[in-house]
Amino acid sequence: MPHIIVEYTDNLTREEFHPKTVLDKINKVFTDRPDVFPVGGVRSRAIRLTDYMIADGAGADDAFVHVTVKIAPGRTQEQKDDACGELFDSLCDYLSPVYDQRGLALSLELYEFGDGGTYKKNNIHKRYKQQ
Amino acid sequence: MPHIIVEYTDNLTREEFHPKTVLDKINKVFTDRPDVFPVGGVRSRAIRLTDYMIADGAGADDAFVHVTVKIAPGRTQEQKDDACGELFDSLCDYLSPVYDQRGLALSLELYEFGDGGTYKKNNIHKRYKQQ
Amino acid sequence: MPHIIVEYTDNLTREEFHPKTVLDKINKVFTDRPDVFPVGGVRSRAIRLTDYMIADGAGADDAFVHVTVKIAPGRTQEQKDDACGELFDSLCDYLSPVYDQRGLALSLELYEFGDGGTYKKNNIHKRYKQQ
Repeated sequence: MPHIIVEYTDNLTREEFHPKTVLDKINKVFTDRPDVFPVGGVRSRAIRLTDYMIADGAGADDAFVHVTVKIAPGRTQEQKDDACGELFDSLCDYLSPVYDQRGLALSLELYEFGDGGTYKKNNIHKRYKQQ
Repeated sequence: MPHIIVEYTDNLTREEFHPKTVLDKINKVFTDRPDVFPVGGVRSRAIRLTDYMIADGAGADDAFVHVTVKIAPGRTQEQKDDACGELFDSLCDYLSPVYDQRGLALSLELYEFGDGGTYKKNNIHKRYKQQ
Repeated sequence: MPHIIVEYTDNLTREEFHPKTVLDKINKVFTDRPDVFPVGGVRSRAIRLTDYMIADGAGADDAFVHVTVKIAPGRTQEQKDDACGELFDSLCDYLSPVYDQRGLALSLELYEFGDGGTYKKNNIHKRYKQQ
């Protein structure tokens, strides 16, 4: 953990929304905070949406990007606000050329794993602990 | 918000489950209630599942459709029941030809964003506020 | 319910991670417990991730698999631990050849549907009740 999922509509061109670039920006927010989010646990993915509808469908060119951040409980509200705020600002900044020209809805939700339980096994952590 | 995700198995033909038709029905449920769900915030998507398994796999032709509705907290239970009930009834109605002929599991979950926090930036709202 | 979603990175070959094999193992965990999880309600799917990033991206060959298990509330903690524990052990066992050779992060989260409400219509149940 954390797990980050970025959904984006496919009417965003690869110049407007380049998945690898966006994931790089996202992961950096977390890897820059190794004491709060262990580096080896950061996993993000981008999901390209091909069938979607916004509002009443009137804006043929409307796009959206939605980010879900899933983390284990235990961080302070300040730590969460800090990371999510920076992530969202970074996303808004990156997409501002699109936002200035057409309909675009950006959103981010923070989800903390509940009492149900999580299970983990991860040999990537050791690479970063050895540094 | 709201965000609606519709997962469907790819053994439903496009005649049986036409993504754009389904998304249109879904969004209409919300856009018909602009005082409860601001029109410009409604975003739905359909996800076609290519690898799936139902029960013990005995029903080679079994299909499923699962809808996740994510909303911000603050609506009354009556408002939520009203919208989700209509959405689910509409889905059941649309898929009744399939349901009458083969194995089909329909489900809908309502998820309200928790205390973790959400972030939003959306220039689509202004189109509907200007009306 | 339950719904199980398995996300996996596409740098896992089909020999390393065969979706149908994994879903078969997953469903078996639940169908082996018909008194806890009604057989006709078990629905799993595998999602192949094509755009993803792990940690700082340094491990070009790093992979991950994340399982989300969604169930209705009402099971005891022991029942949940039992099913999820067996599922995760089975996954770790299946992926141990990969885990022994390269970076791999495995995780499972259990999510219980909240108070928001769920809606269900499922004619597959009757096949298993008739047995």
